[in-house]
Amino acid sequence: MSASDSPSPAIQHLNHIEAALPDLHRHDRIVVPEVILAETKAVERALEIAEAFLARTGRAILSRVPDALHSALVSRFADQLEWHPASRMAIVRAPGQAPPAATGGRIGVITAGTSDQPVAEEAALVLREMGCAVTTAYDVGVAGLHRLFGPLRHLLGEAQVDVIIVAAGMDGALPSVVSGLVDVPVIGLPTSIGYGLGGRGEAAIMTMLQSCAPGLSVVNIDNGVGAAAVAGLIAVRCARARQERPSEATP
Amino acid sequence: MSASDSPSPAIQHLNHIEAALPDLHRHDRIVVPEVILAETKAVERALEIAEAFLARTGRAILSRVPDALHSALVSRFADQLEWHPASRMAIVRAPGQAPPAATGGRIGVITAGTSDQPVAEEAALVLREMGCAVTTAYDVGVAGLHRLFGPLRHLLGEAQVDVIIVAAGMDGALPSVVSGLVDVPVIGLPTSIGYGLGGRGEAAIMTMLQSCAPGLSVVNIDNGVGAAAVAGLIAVRCARARQERPSEATP
Amino acid sequence: MSASDSPSPAIQHLNHIEAALPDLHRHDRIVVPEVILAETKAVERALEIAEAFLARTGRAILSRVPDALHSALVSRFADQLEWHPASRMAIVRAPGQAPPAATGGRIGVITAGTSDQPVAEEAALVLREMGCAVTTAYDVGVAGLHRLFGPLRHLLGEAQVDVIIVAAGMDGALPSVVSGLVDVPVIGLPTSIGYGLGGRGEAAIMTMLQSCAPGLSVVNIDNGVGAAAVAGLIAVRCARARQERPSEATP
Amino acid sequence: MSASDSPSPAIQHLNHIEAALPDLHRHDRIVVPEVILAETKAVERALEIAEAFLARTGRAILSRVPDALHSALVSRFADQLEWHPASRMAIVRAPGQAPPAATGGRIGVITAGTSDQPVAEEAALVLREMGCAVTTAYDVGVAGLHRLFGPLRHLLGEAQVDVIIVAAGMDGALPSVVSGLVDVPVIGLPTSIGYGLGGRGEAAIMTMLQSCAPGLSVVNIDNGVGAAAVAGLIAVRCARARQERPSEATP
Amino acid sequence: MSASDSPSPAIQHLNHIEAALPDLHRHDRIVVPEVILAETKAVERALEIAEAFLARTGRAILSRVPDALHSALVSRFADQLEWHPASRMAIVRAPGQAPPAATGGRIGVITAGTSDQPVAEEAALVLREMGCAVTTAYDVGVAGLHRLFGPLRHLLGEAQVDVIIVAAGMDGALPSVVSGLVDVPVIGLPTSIGYGLGGRGEAAIMTMLQSCAPGLSVVNIDNGVGAAAVAGLIAVRCARARQERPSEATP
Amino acid sequence: MSASDSPSPAIQHLNHIEAALPDLHRHDRIVVPEVILAETKAVERALEIAEAFLARTGRAILSRVPDALHSALVSRFADQLEWHPASRMAIVRAPGQAPPAATGGRIGVITAGTSDQPVAEEAALVLREMGCAVTTAYDVGVAGLHRLFGPLRHLLGEAQVDVIIVAAGMDGALPSVVSGLVDVPVIGLPTSIGYGLGGRGEAAIMTMLQSCAPGLSVVNIDNGVGAAAVAGLIAVRCARARQERPSEATP
Amino acid sequence: MSASDSPSPAIQHLNHIEAALPDLHRHDRIVVPEVILAETKAVERALEIAEAFLARTGRAILSRVPDALHSALVSRFADQLEWHPASRMAIVRAPGQAPPAATGGRIGVITAGTSDQPVAEEAALVLREMGCAVTTAYDVGVAGLHRLFGPLRHLLGEAQVDVIIVAAGMDGALPSVVSGLVDVPVIGLPTSIGYGLGGRGEAAIMTMLQSCAPGLSVVNIDNGVGAAAVAGLIAVRCARARQERPSEATP
Amino acid sequence: MSASDSPSPAIQHLNHIEAALPDLHRHDRIVVPEVILAETKAVERALEIAEAFLARTGRAILSRVPDALHSALVSRFADQLEWHPASRMAIVRAPGQAPPAATGGRIGVITAGTSDQPVAEEAALVLREMGCAVTTAYDVGVAGLHRLFGPLRHLLGEAQVDVIIVAAGMDGALPSVVSGLVDVPVIGLPTSIGYGLGGRGEAAIMTMLQSCAPGLSVVNIDNGVGAAAVAGLIAVRCARARQERPSEATP
Repeated sequence: MSASDSPSPAIQHLNHIEAALPDLHRHDRIVVPEVILAETKAVERALEIAEAFLARTGRAILSRVPDALHSALVSRFADQLEWHPASRMAIVRAPGQAPPAATGGRIGVITAGTSDQPVAEEAALVLREMGCAVTTAYDVGVAGLHRLFGPLRHLLGEAQVDVIIVAAGMDGALPSVVSGLVDVPVIGLPTSIGYGLGGRGEAAIMTMLQSCAPGLSVVNIDNGVGAAAVAGLIAVRCARARQERPSEATP
Repeated sequence: MSASDSPSPAIQHLNHIEAALPDLHRHDRIVVPEVILAETKAVERALEIAEAFLARTGRAILSRVPDALHSALVSRFADQLEWHPASRMAIVRAPGQAPPAATGGRIGVITAGTSDQPVAEEAALVLREMGCAVTTAYDVGVAGLHRLFGPLRHLLGEAQVDVIIVAAGMDGALPSVVSGLVDVPVIGLPTSIGYGLGGRGEAAIMTMLQSCAPGLSVVNIDNGVGAAAVAGLIAVRCARARQERPSEATP
Repeated sequence: MSASDSPSPAIQHLNHIEAALPDLHRHDRIVVPEVILAETKAVERALEIAEAFLARTGRAILSRVPDALHSALVSRFADQLEWHPASRMAIVRAPGQAPPAATGGRIGVITAGTSDQPVAEEAALVLREMGCAVTTAYDVGVAGLHRLFGPLRHLLGEAQVDVIIVAAGMDGALPSVVSGLVDVPVIGLPTSIGYGLGGRGEAAIMTMLQSCAPGLSVVNIDNGVGAAAVAGLIAVRCARARQERPSEATP
Repeated sequence: MSASDSPSPAIQHLNHIEAALPDLHRHDRIVVPEVILAETKAVERALEIAEAFLARTGRAILSRVPDALHSALVSRFADQLEWHPASRMAIVRAPGQAPPAATGGRIGVITAGTSDQPVAEEAALVLREMGCAVTTAYDVGVAGLHRLFGPLRHLLGEAQVDVIIVAAGMDGALPSVVSGLVDVPVIGLPTSIGYGLGGRGEAAIMTMLQSCAPGLSVVNIDNGVGAAAVAGLIAVRCARARQERPSEATP
Repeated sequence: MSASDSPSPAIQHLNHIEAALPDLHRHDRIVVPEVILAETKAVERALEIAEAFLARTGRAILSRVPDALHSALVSRFADQLEWHPASRMAIVRAPGQAPPAATGGRIGVITAGTSDQPVAEEAALVLREMGCAVTTAYDVGVAGLHRLFGPLRHLLGEAQVDVIIVAAGMDGALPSVVSGLVDVPVIGLPTSIGYGLGGRGEAAIMTMLQSCAPGLSVVNIDNGVGAAAVAGLIAVRCARARQERPSEATP
Repeated sequence: MSASDSPSPAIQHLNHIEAALPDLHRHDRIVVPEVILAETKAVERALEIAEAFLARTGRAILSRVPDALHSALVSRFADQLEWHPASRMAIVRAPGQAPPAATGGRIGVITAGTSDQPVAEEAALVLREMGCAVTTAYDVGVAGLHRLFGPLRHLLGEAQVDVIIVAAGMDGALPSVVSGLVDVPVIGLPTSIGYGLGGRGEAAIMTMLQSCAPGLSVVNIDNGVGAAAVAGLIAVRCARARQERPSEATP
Repeated sequence: MSASDSPSPAIQHLNHIEAALPDLHRHDRIVVPEVILAETKAVERALEIAEAFLARTGRAILSRVPDALHSALVSRFADQLEWHPASRMAIVRAPGQAPPAATGGRIGVITAGTSDQPVAEEAALVLREMGCAVTTAYDVGVAGLHRLFGPLRHLLGEAQVDVIIVAAGMDGALPSVVSGLVDVPVIGLPTSIGYGLGGRGEAAIMTMLQSCAPGLSVVNIDNGVGAAAVAGLIAVRCARARQERPSEATP
Repeated sequence: MSASDSPSPAIQHLNHIEAALPDLHRHDRIVVPEVILAETKAVERALEIAEAFLARTGRAILSRVPDALHSALVSRFADQLEWHPASRMAIVRAPGQAPPAATGGRIGVITAGTSDQPVAEEAALVLREMGCAVTTAYDVGVAGLHRLFGPLRHLLGEAQVDVIIVAAGMDGALPSVVSGLVDVPVIGLPTSIGYGLGGRGEAAIMTMLQSCAPGLSVVNIDNGVGAAAVAGLIAVRCARARQERPSEATP
């Protein structure tokens, strides 16, 4: 029988087959929580993935949760659900699951305007779920520099942060200004605030990339989760180094 | 107890701590009113900010007010609210609060088409709140030059304006034409009218930036508030100079 | 004889025919000097235009002068030529032609970095040719805010400027910061310094357009001539108002 | 012998094989001359193509001729070569080849600035080679409207043009203004004059595309040849219609 | 009384003051109908403008009519309203107003795909309102060249069109192909069909601008009204030339 | 009677007139099914076209089906309709119409993330309708390389695919990685997943175009139908070659 | 000794350490030759890499060879060097190294214009080095469709190609037209020919990505090497299938 | 004397006036060396700045040094000059100035291709000047994953780096792949390698910004200095934490 006489073929879905890879990871690796980006997934699919995370890790974190998914989460998880309306983040914890233990990581999160707060909150929550101490200062943008110096002095002094996330939309100038004033790494977090030419965060991200202040790196527009992952990796690494005995640190 | 055994850390919100900055401002500075950009803020947050402005300055100005916020403003402020449906601006005045005193500033606001009027109105209202006299001429674009010369002659003659805001979308050619005809500064105010390539104001702002007529500077697309701030600063400064005694002006 | 049998047609060049336009100009109008943008013109054509200006006004100003044109200017005009190598501007004055009389206009010109100086110098020279007093402060960008406050205090205090031009490339953040600190109009002058995404001045102009500091308007990238025209119109208008008698100012 | 044992294959170049297509063309079709875009071709290849055109049609027209090709043309064609340095166009005519007969087509070509002349000249020359009468008016841009009305009245009156090409760079506003004043079709010809945002003709072409003046269509930046082809087709068609007997025109 | 003690100023709206301009127009000018772009106007404002047109010219044409405006038009104008749902155009004629008289202009309108029909219909209707004869051929794109040659032969032969509008979205290749096959001017009308990179008509308009087929000019994406204005001006001019006596055409 | 006295002209719609073209097609050509892109068509128009396809070929395939059209399809075709909600594809078969016979073509379809599945499913369904055997592996992106190697080994080994479609949004890095690991052609299928700079698939398609891994070509963002057409042509051609006798293949 | 007293650290360069990866490759894999992209490499570095390739594979292929590197190649490799000036490709073969054996792969390469030839030649040479038979047809673009049909009939008929590469700049319309006429896969190869909006190949690549003709995939602008890799993989795979016994092909 | 009779005003250059700012800096702050971006500065100006740095800090670092400046540096500084031709960096040390002391910071720098090495070298040199230990691995891009795992295992194991800089041009996929494999922060350093759509580093930076691998932040295209500043701040901070006594770290 020739192929062209065969019955119609079907689509075969491979089960996920994993392969052993060279192991690059040390045993005590720093764990950045996986966050489910909900807005591009159908409600049922997002719920399935959340259930899988819950079963595997005792926790599911969902970002950019649409209304329909929020309703579904409320009815399925009830009291297990922690809901943050401004940032539209949902955190579900398995019954009896403790919040993350403190890692000693210390991070500052500041925003230029009040409209940048939701994205900053997204970052702060992910950092909290990494066991980090977060200190925030909102609405301290360059149009009112007098509001900036006090919080910065607190972050570098009393709070002893290892890294600062600076969220800014519109002109996006604040991260450059902050980077010129501090000597900890700064993560520029552009937000999609602003309209017209360079709006939706485009001017903000470009000006951050063009900054000549040393120590500023950038994540994408509105990517609070990504900023938190970078800042958390830095801060937890510093915290661990502080907790090691000096002799252990120098091989 | 090591840090990793600590209970989960919380997010600490800094109170706003202000720092003394070198004082750059003279005593009689020209006050540009702060305008609350409402469209990127949650209703409750916008109301809070408006209340704070009312308490502090006796007035709150909100631009780009969404429907939900408009309803909330109506129910909270009733007669105190002045509502401009075309530009979606809201002005709330504290009981007994007088309108701004006349500063003597004189500004012309003209538009290329009828669709540019809402943005022009936004500018005109902010200027009125700066105590400026505003003279408008709408729908005088380059497709009908005969409609332009009369109003221009009035603005430069009888109205004696110190600066002209020219709002234009689509081809955005009018500010160049006006700048070539007058000798007062012109503020190009591109609007997001127009579709296709160069639409949403992109052609308009670019052609204004490319103008070779002297004396034209530009604000962003649909930024009526920004155009008013610039024009108001110029006009009030000129008005004050006119009110000074000549001997005072030359130190 | 039918048209298709006619001899080959030639190209007819119209002499420039001027038409009377409604007169919009008052008698004592503020004169912004015409500047010949040399880089897009052939050497011979640029020389012709310069000669025409010299004959008509006693002065020719050329910007963005290429090497070949510079040589030609030197050999044709010798001592009449004033050459500014950093900004590549040439000013030629007819024999016996006096420099412009002082108008009383006062302008500040500041730059974020040393690479922005040529464009700032272009603006300063055009303003000088308008009879304005210019005070400059270079290299005071946001990466070192402590260098900014002193000059600003001087400009607003002793120098009493009516308007400030702020030239900045790369992140372009300085005009926003300055606009938040002063109450005179600020002209943002982006420069084409910077590489990569947002380079060649694109991030700079976009962040200036997105600024929420009041009183900032923008000219195109590297357009020092344009910034000077706007600033000069504002400053001379203020100066004239100061020189008028108060009673004349209120019709 | 299996294929994989074969000797190495060579690259076979097909001779051009033509196929009969349905004939859409009437017998007396209007002939737009083919113009050889020289800048993207190697010198030898450009010469070959020019020779082929000369042999076939008695004429070769080359645009955007680089220096090296210009030298080669001079040495090969000597007196046969007609060279236009501003537009860098070369026209070579076979010995004894007459210039094109007049078709009766009448076209206006105007420019906003002097820097737009080379592109306008490119258009005018191609039109001349189509046997059209061309009337030009240069440097009549919107920064000096009083220079525009005289030439326009001449073009529409005495010269009776059927179509106007308007070349403009920078702000590109002139074609909109002209289209609002005349009732013949206008071809917008943006030029690559201008720098910064919207430079290199981008603002010019976008503003032309956004024009709301009726009767304006556009060709690409610096495409003088293309503008001439469109204008020539229109004008020659009108001229032929004028030469037909009325009874022939209505089938 | 000093100015700063004056009562609050109001906004003064200038009545439209018209100025006499040099008359460029001949007596029998070709009239392109004004079309009200409805989508950027509030319903009440659009109705006002339509009433004004009706009163002045006996006809109002509205394009891109939103649902709310359509309902308002139906209830206000009832039988006077001619409604085209695909292109969302509305034509209102005053009672007793005759349709436009035939001008003798002849135009072809073809589309690449069925999705391009609404924009093509917009063009065809405006041309009909100019008194032109329109012949359409839809869905003849380059993916099926065999469907193109028949209609083209009809347009050039029996229909004797003076100009062809070619509407195409997605790859936008059809106008180039048509321009290579005919010797009448072609108006490329890109449509916003297509998604992904180059979608919403961007690839279509760019490929048309890049065409090397002679005789193609372009209007903006989805600008059926604009394409009709250009094509109508060309066709009516040709028609009038055909109706003139030859002796009149050669001055 | 002159033309201008004629009654108003109407719009004449040409019946589609087909022309004979040179026949390029061999008799046994590989048939890529036509897919009706539904999202840009009105419901009634889409139904008409689907009916026409059903009548002519016994099958209609519709992609990107909006809700309203889906309802209309359900009510008109009932059991004949095969509906795929994730990819929003609809397949309608005429009564008694058999599914496509197997062609022997073998294709792999893999995705980087779960959000890319709808577009991948679109491709897989079109391939199934070409009679190809499709093997899929979803969610094997570069953030977890260990999940990639197993499926790839299966595709190249047991499944013996001739070509692999790799769908990826956001960073779009997977197709490069896969192309570096396999020696069958890879079709990069960018999806519109991702936000911020480079979002909506722009980074994905650009990184695929920039890949230096050999054997990767690209279709547009979200164009699952296009990827399937290319992959199907390749796979069916390979399958036919396998079914030919060797002697037939070498002319 | 504390770290801060240590002597200055040096930069340590890792030797390349390779790791075993899961083997995905079958034994008789199709080998796409590696091509050294020379233009971004220093002369000495490019020579080193070429030597390394020569030593390992007996052949080095370099693309986009700058003048300085060309001279260096001539002086180092003399007769071993095969130089293609149009495409600036260099092929160096070790002494005694045979040209590649014929694989049986058959490919067509066609171009729209003469300016596209260098890029097409780059593709043809790489294919020749893969042992493929290449048939070319140059300058058959859409502006002259009558030149296209003959070559296409030859490619599909006598030459029996398995895949066609279509190189086109400017409007980039040819690949769409070809894809609509043939049933082999088509690789669209945009070239950087063209100026103005959509120039440098941008319109060309976008229109190819937007094509609705089935079977077209795309590589980046001027990427002749990449087009050849894709086409070669397809053609050699087909050739091998033809050389297999049918029974081997169906597992 | 009125102002308009005054002699021509001059341009007054302010000396830099510094102002006291709130002190945000701790005493032992981490010092990122200032690097002079030479390419946008005139030779004389760059030399002046270098001299100033030498005098103040005993060292001057210049990046992107043009040929003319390189010659000037050689003749002025002779043996004091350390020159790196690939990255075009120059380091000048005052006589007797020791190289920087080791800080204990440990950084990995890897590149996707050989063309990315100059930018990576720029980063490595700046890090060396911060007293950091740098381990590099070049040419380990995704087209050959087997070359990646060995170096990564070394960096995380023996070298114990705190942060990895990953330089990549073209597809820019390597930083995403690395970020998915390690748990230290990764700095994506896009390079301007690549041509066509997404060339000059645009695709690279966008794909890095779109990465969903946790822990990746980005600096601008070719900004090796910026990447080094961020990585150095992180690594030195970790090193200092390792050197502190644990009890000091927990306030």
